[in-house]
Amino acid sequence: MPDEILDDISHRRYNPLTGSWLLVSPHRTKRPWQGQQEEPSKAKLPDHDPQCYLCPGNKRAQGDSNPYYQNTFAFINDYSAVKEEQQAYEPAVSSDDVSSLLLRAQPVIGRCYVLTFSAKHNVTLADMTAPEILPVIQTWTRFYASHLSPTHPLRAQAARVLESIPANPDGEVDPPARQLRYMQIFENKGAAMGCSNPHPHCQIWTTSSLPEEPAKEQVQLAQYRAEHGRHMLADYAKLEMEKGERVVWQNDGFLVVCPWWAVWPFEVLIIAKRHVRALVDLTDDERLQLAKAIQEVTRRYDDLFETSFPYSSGIHQAPLDCSEEEAETSWFHMHFYPPLLRSATVRKFLVGYEMLAEPQRDITPEQAAARLRDSGSKLHRKLGN
Amino acid sequence: MPDEILDDISHRRYNPLTGSWLLVSPHRTKRPWQGQQEEPSKAKLPDHDPQCYLCPGNKRAQGDSNPYYQNTFAFINDYSAVKEEQQAYEPAVSSDDVSSLLLRAQPVIGRCYVLTFSAKHNVTLADMTAPEILPVIQTWTRFYASHLSPTHPLRAQAARVLESIPANPDGEVDPPARQLRYMQIFENKGAAMGCSNPHPHCQIWTTSSLPEEPAKEQVQLAQYRAEHGRHMLADYAKLEMEKGERVVWQNDGFLVVCPWWAVWPFEVLIIAKRHVRALVDLTDDERLQLAKAIQEVTRRYDDLFETSFPYSSGIHQAPLDCSEEEAETSWFHMHFYPPLLRSATVRKFLVGYEMLAEPQRDITPEQAAARLRDSGSKLHRKLGN
Ligand SMILES: O=P(O)(O)O[C@H]1O[C@H](CO)[C@@H](O)[C@H](O)[C@H]1O
Ligand SMILES: O=P(O)(O)O[C@H]1O[C@H](CO)[C@@H](O)[C@H](O)[C@H]1O
Repeated sequence: MPDEILDDISHRRYNPLTGSWLLVSPHRTKRPWQGQQEEPSKAKLPDHDPQCYLCPGNKRAQGDSNPYYQNTFAFINDYSAVKEEQQAYEPAVSSDDVSSLLLRAQPVIGRCYVLTFSAKHNVTLADMTAPEILPVIQTWTRFYASHLSPTHPLRAQAARVLESIPANPDGEVDPPARQLRYMQIFENKGAAMGCSNPHPHCQIWTTSSLPEEPAKEQVQLAQYRAEHGRHMLADYAKLEMEKGERVVWQNDGFLVVCPWWAVWPFEVLIIAKRHVRALVDLTDDERLQLAKAIQEVTRRYDDLFETSFPYSSGIHQAPLDCSEEEAETSWFHMHFYPPLLRSATVRKFLVGYEMLAEPQRDITPEQAAARLRDSGSKLHRKLGN
Repeated sequence: MPDEILDDISHRRYNPLTGSWLLVSPHRTKRPWQGQQEEPSKAKLPDHDPQCYLCPGNKRAQGDSNPYYQNTFAFINDYSAVKEEQQAYEPAVSSDDVSSLLLRAQPVIGRCYVLTFSAKHNVTLADMTAPEILPVIQTWTRFYASHLSPTHPLRAQAARVLESIPANPDGEVDPPARQLRYMQIFENKGAAMGCSNPHPHCQIWTTSSLPEEPAKEQVQLAQYRAEHGRHMLADYAKLEMEKGERVVWQNDGFLVVCPWWAVWPFEVLIIAKRHVRALVDLTDDERLQLAKAIQEVTRRYDDLFETSFPYSSGIHQAPLDCSEEEAETSWFHMHFYPPLLRSATVRKFLVGYEMLAEPQRDITPEQAAARLRDSGSKLHRKLGN
């Protein structure tokens, strides 16, 4: 049995989604920890905080007032990482000039949004039921649809969801005049993940460029398809369902696994079981199934170390502006990157060796999946599910 | 003037060493910070701590006692990330089996060392003079030399340094019987970088595999050489000396720059000015010059926010076991990745967008270099240099 030996030897695993390797050291969790301790997240927050710039009715940094919204509320980030209007810049490129080889830049324009998940200041996705998470997914879907290029291969699907999903005026912002290339939906949860406000929210950054990670994945997914005539994530989901040892949870629409190539201790991947290219491909029923999958992941996380589990998560799907081929290659999935390793206060640091040489993990993804499978019962009971 | 505009627009920059892009948002530092605060490093530590497993004469976790060493002291990590002896594992590979495409693993063997910089518990490289840092570089050099493959293109240089640099029995460990491929020397400094012990030390991980980061660099360096007939880092160092705006400091042997493609706010690269392939290529004089460069970087860091500045740093050089071609392609350099952004307590988080999409930085490398050029005078005065 070649797999069990991997519980005991140091080895590398290959990530076919990004084409890179990581180091796995299953024997290494025994070492004592004398380093930095995270603060366990503060237990008691009010359900409305007058100081919070995201709570309904409050004032934001730049002076705007938030509406008295019900669940999702979207606005343009007051401190966007990309500008929408800026001076034009055409980098000089000459193939024999050292400057244009080694000091390469390209302008990026775009727009960054903030989107709340709930009007309540003191809940997280883990505390919300699937029907409560559904409006978040509906808002994501309408957001994506409204930002899609008019010549996009999924424009018919976009039109359909914009008609069928009820609009929520607080959760919508008209797209910018200029068509952008990619929309990254992501959540930073918890102080350990640089999140500066506990009010449940995500960010949506749209840019004129295709960022590195989805670009790498597109290359890998396209290559696999060209070589094997099948979708990598279809093959992968099927394989994991057969094997079972890395599966955390599943329903008809989605598979939740600790991927073979997980870097973070309890890293999780939610994979669409059928060929969903982007949010607009999801049926009504699948949106609720995705809500359920997100709820399962986040509750199991919270339950694992009995803390509000920090993580960064995000969706990869078809670009906003893309060819038929690129859309076909895309396969909807959602990554969760949580830093905790051993308890609510001891995290994994990806530092010296990881930055200079190669990502390194301690427990195996199989061990992590087993713990997440067992997890969740306490909180489920508490919430009456 | 195409460069100044980059102070004002959002743009991407290309890292030719790894072949990847990052997002630069120079306008973004204005946002308020309400997130996690780092603990400023504790000011007063004893120069010998009876609880420290690195101090001279103390007992380590596994029961060994440390010698009463003078400066450097090396030992095999009690909790190595790679094993030296382990069961053999030959992964099955078949080109049409989905398992062997998507669940790929390879065994890694190796050995991890810990190496102290000083017998004193309460100093850091920033507090040490160049002559005090020199023994560290000598130890690194002898370590690298003693672990080199017997057929290595640099074996004559290795023999020379093993003869000319005085041996320090406390700072040496016999290499393992099996020849390894790569040696990664790195330091995690400060609790923010997962360092569990303030006693000044680095780690040296040697593995049977070439890790991802140096592997990517090798590919990029080799390709540049093939295309342009010159070394990328020779061209780059020359270009930066001409431009000046990203230069922090230099001496005859080494250039210290905030590289064009820096991801971390005050990221620094020390580049050898001539073609140094690995530590064993350095002359006596160059080792002292490298000590001086490291001292300049670390003191400027500490001075910048008047704190013991956290960072991870590490050396990239020729693999321990490599071809003539690989050795020729290698160009000695040292990376510093420090997380602080705005003060001793406010760091940059590379989280959601960075993990899911693309690294993002706020201040430009040119702004960072200007601040590091201006920095260092207070501590220099304090230490009488
Ligand atoms: O071995 P240490 O210093 O305890 O561990 C530290 O550095 C290692 C190498 O970068 C990391 O893998 C660990 O996560 C980190 O805590
Ligand atoms: O915009 P926020 O939430 O304040 O900022 C947080 O997320 C961003 C996107 O991952 C990061 O660039 C910041 O470093 C982090 O603090």
